[in-house]
Amino acid sequence: MSQRQIKLGAFLMETGHHIAAWRHPHAHAAAGLDFAHYAELAQIAERAKFDTIFFADSVGVRDTDLASLSRTARADHFEPLTLLSALSAVTRHIGLTATVSTSFNEPYNVARKFASLDHLSGGRAGWNLVTSSSETEAHNFSLDRHFDHALRYERAREFYDIVTGLWDSWEDDAFVRDKESGLYFDPAKLHTLNHRGKHFKVKGPLNVARAPQGWPVVVQAGASEAGRELAAQTAEVIFVAHQTLEEAQSFYRDVKGRLARYGRHPDDLKIMPGIFPVIGRTQEEADEKFEALQALIHPVVGVSLLSKMAGGVDLSSYPVDGPVPDLPETNGGKSRQRLLLDLARRENLTIRDLYLRIAGARGHQQVVGTPQSIADQLQQWFEEGAADGFNIMSPWLPGGLVEFAAHVVPELQRRGLFRTEYEGTTLRQNLGLRRPPNRHAIERSANAHALADAG
Amino acid sequence: MSQRQIKLGAFLMETGHHIAAWRHPHAHAAAGLDFAHYAELAQIAERAKFDTIFFADSVGVRDTDLASLSRTARADHFEPLTLLSALSAVTRHIGLTATVSTSFNEPYNVARKFASLDHLSGGRAGWNLVTSSSETEAHNFSLDRHFDHALRYERAREFYDIVTGLWDSWEDDAFVRDKESGLYFDPAKLHTLNHRGKHFKVKGPLNVARAPQGWPVVVQAGASEAGRELAAQTAEVIFVAHQTLEEAQSFYRDVKGRLARYGRHPDDLKIMPGIFPVIGRTQEEADEKFEALQALIHPVVGVSLLSKMAGGVDLSSYPVDGPVPDLPETNGGKSRQRLLLDLARRENLTIRDLYLRIAGARGHQQVVGTPQSIADQLQQWFEEGAADGFNIMSPWLPGGLVEFAAHVVPELQRRGLFRTEYEGTTLRQNLGLRRPPNRHAIERSANAHALADAG
Ligand SMILES: Cc1cc2nc3c(=O)[nH]c(=O)nc-3n(C[C@H](O)[C@H](O)[C@H](O)COP(=O)(O)O)c2cc1C
Ligand SMILES: Cc1cc2nc3c(=O)[nH]c(=O)nc-3n(C[C@H](O)[C@H](O)[C@H](O)COP(=O)(O)O)c2cc1C
Repeated sequence: MSQRQIKLGAFLMETGHHIAAWRHPHAHAAAGLDFAHYAELAQIAERAKFDTIFFADSVGVRDTDLASLSRTARADHFEPLTLLSALSAVTRHIGLTATVSTSFNEPYNVARKFASLDHLSGGRAGWNLVTSSSETEAHNFSLDRHFDHALRYERAREFYDIVTGLWDSWEDDAFVRDKESGLYFDPAKLHTLNHRGKHFKVKGPLNVARAPQGWPVVVQAGASEAGRELAAQTAEVIFVAHQTLEEAQSFYRDVKGRLARYGRHPDDLKIMPGIFPVIGRTQEEADEKFEALQALIHPVVGVSLLSKMAGGVDLSSYPVDGPVPDLPETNGGKSRQRLLLDLARRENLTIRDLYLRIAGARGHQQVVGTPQSIADQLQQWFEEGAADGFNIMSPWLPGGLVEFAAHVVPELQRRGLFRTEYEGTTLRQNLGLRRPPNRHAIERSANAHALADAG
Repeated sequence: MSQRQIKLGAFLMETGHHIAAWRHPHAHAAAGLDFAHYAELAQIAERAKFDTIFFADSVGVRDTDLASLSRTARADHFEPLTLLSALSAVTRHIGLTATVSTSFNEPYNVARKFASLDHLSGGRAGWNLVTSSSETEAHNFSLDRHFDHALRYERAREFYDIVTGLWDSWEDDAFVRDKESGLYFDPAKLHTLNHRGKHFKVKGPLNVARAPQGWPVVVQAGASEAGRELAAQTAEVIFVAHQTLEEAQSFYRDVKGRLARYGRHPDDLKIMPGIFPVIGRTQEEADEKFEALQALIHPVVGVSLLSKMAGGVDLSSYPVDGPVPDLPETNGGKSRQRLLLDLARRENLTIRDLYLRIAGARGHQQVVGTPQSIADQLQQWFEEGAADGFNIMSPWLPGGLVEFAAHVVPELQRRGLFRTEYEGTTLRQNLGLRRPPNRHAIERSANAHALADAG
């Protein structure tokens, strides 16, 4: 049974990924800060044998358009590491992946918290390493402007080296804890990092034993050239947003093709695009469900989204059910602005029609259909070189996840495309990723061999 | 029943506070990274109605003397906030107090994590604000030297203002979540901090709703003049180490006396010295238990402790059961060095005898006795102006805490000195601390009154 299988992440977000999910008649509108809600979601995903749950993060309130923001459930939520730590106590198998920015944290703290979570959970921690793209976050960290893109990634690369170096502070068998002799650990198996780089100086060692996974799983989600390159060097999982099979295939080929340069095998990295599934027993039911959610988008929210996508033009003074006006040229996103305008003209769309086209899945692949048709699409992407798995972004929660677990997962299992039992006890084992050996233990055994050869 | 009662904290640490606790025959030597161990401890403390559990922290391996460090269980442990978050899921009433340094973190991250923990736990979070005194920690945070003492406290004060300001970002009733109208929060009840100070610039707002406690409880443990002054301005609980009743009374008078200057009432601050209790059915049994632990101190560990206390002289080359040599003068801690030498001469102590005198409770009050005699002492300190409560530092865990819960707590309850049921649902309510009103709500109601007066 070594057939390649799909990996699944449950990308959780408050009441769901649809911007109006909180207004769904069955939604628990205050779910964003309700631990019981997340405990339920994590347990649903675990019963369905998902590899991991995943939380995105922003270190600040990103949107400054209050009229729109105040009509969404996006302004406040749990900090992901505290939330995942609590969830570790109410789950046993599922991975726990949190986003933490390299731009607004210290590497020692990040190394420590993920090592701690990995110990708490028996080897289920994953770190989504992001560099954070928003200016508003930078303003919460004594910066007038965010670091430039290239600098962000340069810092991220050094940050990664420090964190993984700290994770190797202790060899796996350093702790002997011999009550008789009084020796708690073997000092020869404790290593000081002594990192002095361009952006950070970190002495070490880490004050947490080596993690059950050796290193927590490193995830990335950067789409730029710098992001892809960093991922090729370091990431074990990539989360990504694609609209079409071709786009996904091209990204997959590109990034997997970069691995050999860094001595890595294509299987060392799992690529998992986001999927926004709307599930019905029939296509009509799925369409109706989607329309019902779409109808809940408040025009202020829809118009604001559209304005941002159209490069920052203000559309709020035009009638929402009137035609899309000729947009004044702006500096931001000219080509996207042109695309939107062409689409509106071609199909004779109103402002409302147009924002409904873009408001759903935030750039991710939106799939509205039956469990069979959704499974077909996942299978196609998986088999035709576009994905190793998927990050499931349920439109509303818990409903959408319940349906995915009840109908799509069994369909994938019937096709032999998804596990029916967890393969291992750690996230790494379930994802099929090797456990990184401790660099100092490798040296030690190399030295021992050299001595043996010499002797 | 408004009789003043003792507050109790359970200061948890790996296998216990005694330096050799991990070698105790019943100790679980690997407890430091075993979540089940801490879950058990938290539940024992909660059944006994303790106000809070508490974790100290250092952001690094503090001790650089490897020979000694490798014979203790102090080099590795959970990061406190991840651990407390997990513990929030397996407890319901007890407070969750974690140490986080203002020197090696960003205020936005700290505000957010504690607000998140407060939501996770339904209002049970406490923050032990420390400035961190060790150089070795600074070396993990791109600093060649730690900030000077005065600067540390200046930064801490600004840090506190930012964190509490961020905790007031949202008024308590900001979230209306009206599905019908589509309004999720009232924009007038969201406030941007716009802090621009000497050390930090933090725009805000926080991306977490106001905490159940308004603000998580702020704890401090700084003993210097600057530490006392910061505590008088800001702390709601003080953890402190005293050896004698007189010392404790003088500290208590001093700090409580400073409160009025900041418009605070003496009851707004609870002073909780650390107590290291060794409990026996008889005095002899207690003494024997203590001696048994003392006998487990490895000479390398004892001599290293003594060397440090004696200002850094190296005693490792002298026979441990021989006399204490005449110590060469050093720069560090001359007066303590003299005290130790005088004690050794007066009582004719060997090196081993001397380190055993200082190795127990790390400067905290050591009480070896029966439940009655221990309760007597707590009662005396509580009634004679030395303490509002105590931070219980069990010599070994879980044993010492089990005994305290089984024998000392009921004795205090019989005397009417300790609760038999939690008074409230939040840490603040149990400690008898008022919930801080939101500063913007105060302004709002002041404005409303001014308008009414004018009208
Ligand atoms: C599924 C997914 C999740 C993401 N989560 C986050 C996140 O939580 N926080 C964040 O700052 N960026 C997040 N991003 C954005 C990326 O990290 C990255 O900033 C963005 O793709 C732009 O790429 P670039 O920085 O390489 O230009 C996410 C992207 C994807 C596809
Ligand atoms: C019970 C107690 C717990 C403490 N916990 C910590 C801690 O976890 N981390 C830390 O850096 N300092 C801790 N301290 C030390 C104080 O915060 C402080 O640094 C020390 O008392 C020196 O005081 P000063 O900084 O005002 O000179 C603790 C002190 C006491 C009494």
